[in-house]
Amino acid sequence: MSKGKVCLAYSGGLDTSVILAWLLEQGYEVVAFMANIGQEEDFEAAEKKAMKIGATKFVLSDVRKEFVEKILFPAVQVNAVYEDVYLLGTSLARPVISKAQIDVAEKEGCFAVAHGCTGKGNDQIRFELAFYALKPDIKCIAPWRDPEFFNRFAGRKDLLDYAAEKGIPVTQTKAKPWSTDENMAHISYEAGILEDPDCTPPKDMWKLITDPSDAPNEPQDLTIFFEKGLPVKLVIGEKKYTTPLEIFHAASSIARKHGVGRIDIVEDRYINLKSRGCYEQAPLTLLRKAHVDLEGLTLDREVRQLRDQFVTPSYSRLLYNGSYFTPECEYVRSMIQPSQNTVNGQVRIRLYKGNVIILGRSSETENLYDATESSMDELTGFQPTDTTGFIAIQAIRVKKYGESKKAKGDPVVL
Amino acid sequence: MSKGKVCLAYSGGLDTSVILAWLLEQGYEVVAFMANIGQEEDFEAAEKKAMKIGATKFVLSDVRKEFVEKILFPAVQVNAVYEDVYLLGTSLARPVISKAQIDVAEKEGCFAVAHGCTGKGNDQIRFELAFYALKPDIKCIAPWRDPEFFNRFAGRKDLLDYAAEKGIPVTQTKAKPWSTDENMAHISYEAGILEDPDCTPPKDMWKLITDPSDAPNEPQDLTIFFEKGLPVKLVIGEKKYTTPLEIFHAASSIARKHGVGRIDIVEDRYINLKSRGCYEQAPLTLLRKAHVDLEGLTLDREVRQLRDQFVTPSYSRLLYNGSYFTPECEYVRSMIQPSQNTVNGQVRIRLYKGNVIILGRSSETENLYDATESSMDELTGFQPTDTTGFIAIQAIRVKKYGESKKAKGDPVVL
Amino acid sequence: MSKGKVCLAYSGGLDTSVILAWLLEQGYEVVAFMANIGQEEDFEAAEKKAMKIGATKFVLSDVRKEFVEKILFPAVQVNAVYEDVYLLGTSLARPVISKAQIDVAEKEGCFAVAHGCTGKGNDQIRFELAFYALKPDIKCIAPWRDPEFFNRFAGRKDLLDYAAEKGIPVTQTKAKPWSTDENMAHISYEAGILEDPDCTPPKDMWKLITDPSDAPNEPQDLTIFFEKGLPVKLVIGEKKYTTPLEIFHAASSIARKHGVGRIDIVEDRYINLKSRGCYEQAPLTLLRKAHVDLEGLTLDREVRQLRDQFVTPSYSRLLYNGSYFTPECEYVRSMIQPSQNTVNGQVRIRLYKGNVIILGRSSETENLYDATESSMDELTGFQPTDTTGFIAIQAIRVKKYGESKKAKGDPVVL
Amino acid sequence: MSKGKVCLAYSGGLDTSVILAWLLEQGYEVVAFMANIGQEEDFEAAEKKAMKIGATKFVLSDVRKEFVEKILFPAVQVNAVYEDVYLLGTSLARPVISKAQIDVAEKEGCFAVAHGCTGKGNDQIRFELAFYALKPDIKCIAPWRDPEFFNRFAGRKDLLDYAAEKGIPVTQTKAKPWSTDENMAHISYEAGILEDPDCTPPKDMWKLITDPSDAPNEPQDLTIFFEKGLPVKLVIGEKKYTTPLEIFHAASSIARKHGVGRIDIVEDRYINLKSRGCYEQAPLTLLRKAHVDLEGLTLDREVRQLRDQFVTPSYSRLLYNGSYFTPECEYVRSMIQPSQNTVNGQVRIRLYKGNVIILGRSSETENLYDATESSMDELTGFQPTDTTGFIAIQAIRVKKYGESKKAKGDPVVL
Repeated sequence: MSKGKVCLAYSGGLDTSVILAWLLEQGYEVVAFMANIGQEEDFEAAEKKAMKIGATKFVLSDVRKEFVEKILFPAVQVNAVYEDVYLLGTSLARPVISKAQIDVAEKEGCFAVAHGCTGKGNDQIRFELAFYALKPDIKCIAPWRDPEFFNRFAGRKDLLDYAAEKGIPVTQTKAKPWSTDENMAHISYEAGILEDPDCTPPKDMWKLITDPSDAPNEPQDLTIFFEKGLPVKLVIGEKKYTTPLEIFHAASSIARKHGVGRIDIVEDRYINLKSRGCYEQAPLTLLRKAHVDLEGLTLDREVRQLRDQFVTPSYSRLLYNGSYFTPECEYVRSMIQPSQNTVNGQVRIRLYKGNVIILGRSSETENLYDATESSMDELTGFQPTDTTGFIAIQAIRVKKYGESKKAKGDPVVL
Repeated sequence: MSKGKVCLAYSGGLDTSVILAWLLEQGYEVVAFMANIGQEEDFEAAEKKAMKIGATKFVLSDVRKEFVEKILFPAVQVNAVYEDVYLLGTSLARPVISKAQIDVAEKEGCFAVAHGCTGKGNDQIRFELAFYALKPDIKCIAPWRDPEFFNRFAGRKDLLDYAAEKGIPVTQTKAKPWSTDENMAHISYEAGILEDPDCTPPKDMWKLITDPSDAPNEPQDLTIFFEKGLPVKLVIGEKKYTTPLEIFHAASSIARKHGVGRIDIVEDRYINLKSRGCYEQAPLTLLRKAHVDLEGLTLDREVRQLRDQFVTPSYSRLLYNGSYFTPECEYVRSMIQPSQNTVNGQVRIRLYKGNVIILGRSSETENLYDATESSMDELTGFQPTDTTGFIAIQAIRVKKYGESKKAKGDPVVL
Repeated sequence: MSKGKVCLAYSGGLDTSVILAWLLEQGYEVVAFMANIGQEEDFEAAEKKAMKIGATKFVLSDVRKEFVEKILFPAVQVNAVYEDVYLLGTSLARPVISKAQIDVAEKEGCFAVAHGCTGKGNDQIRFELAFYALKPDIKCIAPWRDPEFFNRFAGRKDLLDYAAEKGIPVTQTKAKPWSTDENMAHISYEAGILEDPDCTPPKDMWKLITDPSDAPNEPQDLTIFFEKGLPVKLVIGEKKYTTPLEIFHAASSIARKHGVGRIDIVEDRYINLKSRGCYEQAPLTLLRKAHVDLEGLTLDREVRQLRDQFVTPSYSRLLYNGSYFTPECEYVRSMIQPSQNTVNGQVRIRLYKGNVIILGRSSETENLYDATESSMDELTGFQPTDTTGFIAIQAIRVKKYGESKKAKGDPVVL
Repeated sequence: MSKGKVCLAYSGGLDTSVILAWLLEQGYEVVAFMANIGQEEDFEAAEKKAMKIGATKFVLSDVRKEFVEKILFPAVQVNAVYEDVYLLGTSLARPVISKAQIDVAEKEGCFAVAHGCTGKGNDQIRFELAFYALKPDIKCIAPWRDPEFFNRFAGRKDLLDYAAEKGIPVTQTKAKPWSTDENMAHISYEAGILEDPDCTPPKDMWKLITDPSDAPNEPQDLTIFFEKGLPVKLVIGEKKYTTPLEIFHAASSIARKHGVGRIDIVEDRYINLKSRGCYEQAPLTLLRKAHVDLEGLTLDREVRQLRDQFVTPSYSRLLYNGSYFTPECEYVRSMIQPSQNTVNGQVRIRLYKGNVIILGRSSETENLYDATESSMDELTGFQPTDTTGFIAIQAIRVKKYGESKKAKGDPVVL
């Protein structure tokens, strides 16, 4: 008799195939779940493999649309970034996948969800915290943290032996000396040879983005239009893209072609370990840079400063730490849209061998920038003497500072 | 009889030459002051011109060394940046110049200082607040905010007429349709045709940095070494640079050659106006990027987060707003060094047509990154079951959130 | 012929009466405006006086309801406080008064508004920034910053002489050696003898709140109910108060009676001067304390922390600095309500001679506190071993810190 | 043969006595450690009991002096407070105790430390993180998280039975229906009947502080002197206290006598549970309030604001969460002293039935407050017209806001 149904996040790879077989061996029924999040993947082959191993059912959820609309575009809106450079490609995908997996688990009557994440990474936390928020009574099976499992499968050979025993087909392609995670926003590379943070990744590792030195010699110009901080149109030459999915895909293709968006960092995992990762994050690099630029033209300075100091880092850290479905992230998310009411306009951009060059920006609706008023050559609507008062008031505190330091024999210095 | 001595920040250009003559006309003696801050300038010609117009004395202060050591390197240490992209090249120069000008004013017995800044910009504030902190009883003469002056010289023609009348030599080169400010860290372009934020700057405007498309086809590799967050060595091929000034100059040359560091933004002036500026900031772009990368390897996550959220934006805003010599900036500066004790190591970098590509990084002294420990393939020194507890504790709050939302009929959603 | 109509914020006192007469003398028509903001005031006498002096019209706006609903209760919701102790009583009134004055100015066809604020205080800024936001083309007349006015009326005697000349009735009561500003939320005392920050205010200065030593010997218990962070019911013995205005008034009476809410501080004006103020802020002291307590029971820790660190201080500073009607304050205000969804429940309180003592709190709807779960005597629903994992993960970073410090010969110390 | 020496944090109570016996039973030698942290305790009786049970040695460390100097006074300096009201009495003691325990463990050759903290509280984390930072290779034995122990001792009866079996003397006094933790800064009450957050604590629970209604009818005045933010003298009538320990004790006695410092809250444990606690925190309440007041007079506004927003909450949270010995806390601690250079002066205070009333404050050395300059009656050194410029510059952004809102049909409202 079955010990109940488990919804397993299945990738088609060796690990989750072994986990699938092992769960069956433990007496569970298994629903194999995959999310189409824009990664390059042979979903049919994965389905066949899962069913061959013994899954009760295979469910593929296409979540690309909600990934762009609910997660990626808001990330652009808030300029999300972790530790200065990482645009959170993996982190951003997790809430969407978790939600889809819980939906499948509920629909299929599963009492538990399972995943193949290691016990040292961020993803286990991202998935499990999401599962618990979305369905507090769900059980989580994490074989790589279960001594029975991880002691049995201590090395890759154990996995291969077990696969052979269970008749699990194994692709003959030699394993790459790193692991990857891909979705429409990015691909990550980590582990293996990359664990030496001074090891320069081989040129053939990079998969999605053209090497800047191989990118076209001709630059490519394009224009991105925003409404309330969200991309609403992308124009590349004669072509116009207007739905979120189209815009995102087109931004991705053109940025990848022109070598935009590779990074290589040592980052801080939530689990208190540092880790080296390389990322190709072409579309977010392009869209975020355009958005930041338009904010210069259209966003009030003080609103921007509050958003930059409080909202952007809080949101980014919460996403990184797998805390999308938490009270605090719900709270922080509520702060994104109200900051963006005036972020309306368009940015003209040139892509060239890895560079995203701003050519200009404009807005039909916003009034914060006023060329005449800012002009050094004009005095319209501005009394230069006002600035004298402005400085005089600021100077009150400053003079006291200078006097006090001098009086104490500790004069102000560089 | 003289109304007293004034120390005028003199540039050799039309404006400050007219101001010099006008101050003399008002009955002041004038000490013409220039700072060598690494800009391209014919200091001798400026001296001759000042003396010809009637300055009592011309003083040139070479402040390049203290500019690098006291200001630019600490800015690298704290990753200073304003509104996401501007590395503060102009702002950073102001404290050093102000200090030198006050020193000259004191030495020469001047009761006042004067400058040629407009009444709409940031620089007037930066200079004057610095003057008041350094010498609270100093008088500031700001002709462009004095109705008597700005009403008399309402246009460029008035300045030229006055120059002619006073025998002030005017260079015949046609004025460029923008204005610039240069020092060893950067050059700025603003005003004129740039006041249309959608006007792409002409290719020949850019002066210091090679256009990425004209930069060498061969990439250039180099290594930057840091101690406590400060650059201490730069190695480019066979060449080694070790003093701050050498390092800064070499970083500048190589980055400029490879097209690194141009930006074009609309920024928020302190004076509550938005303004468009283009900047070439090659050396800070390179050094800052290397520093950020090394922090990934060597800086504790939580120290970094506190520094990133509080210190970096506070310091950057204060510098931008001309508040270097204030109690709050003294306070914030005291927070830079204590964050950098572990930022020791080296970063290998490739420059290529505008790209700064990280090739790898390492540290002989720091232990925060541990390849074995982070390895997904290793379990040494780590109990995967610990993570189960870690997640379980985090999940307490998360489950309550999910339950509460469900109980209120407002379930958790994407 | 009239130079146009001016809407003057009129108080009935000597200063604004002189200003009224002076404005008439300058050739303006004057609409005298007063706001009923809950202060103790003889509005009829003020009206008579204004009309006698020559006002075209006298308009009294009763803004008490919107003051409580739009401003005071949200201030309680966000726990607003400036520099640790000041509950912003004066600052909070300014937006409501300004709005009412602009409404009157528009309705009466005034091209300008005028006020009697001094040139050194916060109020001039609060009023004028509000005026400009609400009606950007309005003119502001601030006689105490107009040299023609302040040079003519250099001392109190000049005002009295002018009043005599113009037939303005002056009350014979001797001026108190301090000035006050009152509304339903508080009264402020400043200037005069209080300008010595070491001068203890005389007992008879305090007007609204019973001296704790004279307050009843019997404590008074009461219960305050909140919904989404807003007070919705106040129960004192048999009496129940349920509208915002009733609740606020009843809270005020009972707190004043029991000696709650006096403070004495030196604060920082926006204008870069320090200033000494004494305040009686009974109702806000009581309501805020109850609200803070209920948040302990019902608000998520992380939401609270974000709100406490970012929203509360930002909102408080903006209010103090007269920036209620700004983009950044609109933005920050939008962050208040979303933090309060779970702040539902009631707090039992005892008042006794200046003390606000929490007796207990409860909530029918919120689940964050769970006595069983928190109990040290129970293990239900909690694996103590989970904490071991939680600590182990935290310890990773901590051990590295200890090791690194030791390795560098700089061991961890107290 | 012994399994090695363990240093046990021993309290003399039932739990740690049973743990002591149980550790012996497991084959360890045990060094019983106690810290004198100012609690009321019969240390000799505890020593006898420990030795009787079988401890190898009993070590009492008197840490009161360093508790005041290294921890409590810096907490006053930084105005430390957790969740608005809790002055962190328990949290502050933990670093000092942990340090002393590790010192004893090292001196006595112990390979492990043990404690009797429950698995649901904050203290286990505070102790263990401290242990790991101070001695990364130490082992921690936490019986209340060891299934072998907590399953065996599931209830109080099991502990009593074991005590009887092992001949451990048990005091006959009936256990109070709450538990306490005491040190010189405070006493905490939690658990038992207090687990109902709406249960008002019985009057006889409170142990250290006089009930305000029983406090003297005569107020008590005193003066506290600070240098660089640290208390350096306390004057009560004729008596003067000048060493940190004397000052702290005297402040404690007088504040306790006058009913100052009781609180009752629901707080958020680090472990993600809410918990109800009552605290008597007399000396910190008094000293902190005086310190806050003096900062009003002597601390620059902007320094204060930075400290308030970043340093105080960060430091308080880190202390609460047991993170004193971490890189981030070392970093934050380095920010305390530089904020306090100008906090020099004295505060006159009246204590009366629970109230801490500020009577006045003064400073001989600081110049930030200037009565003449702040005076509403004086114009010395201040041009009222300067404020006009100050407001005009601020108004630029504000007017644009008003215009933009109006243009979009969404006018500015309250």
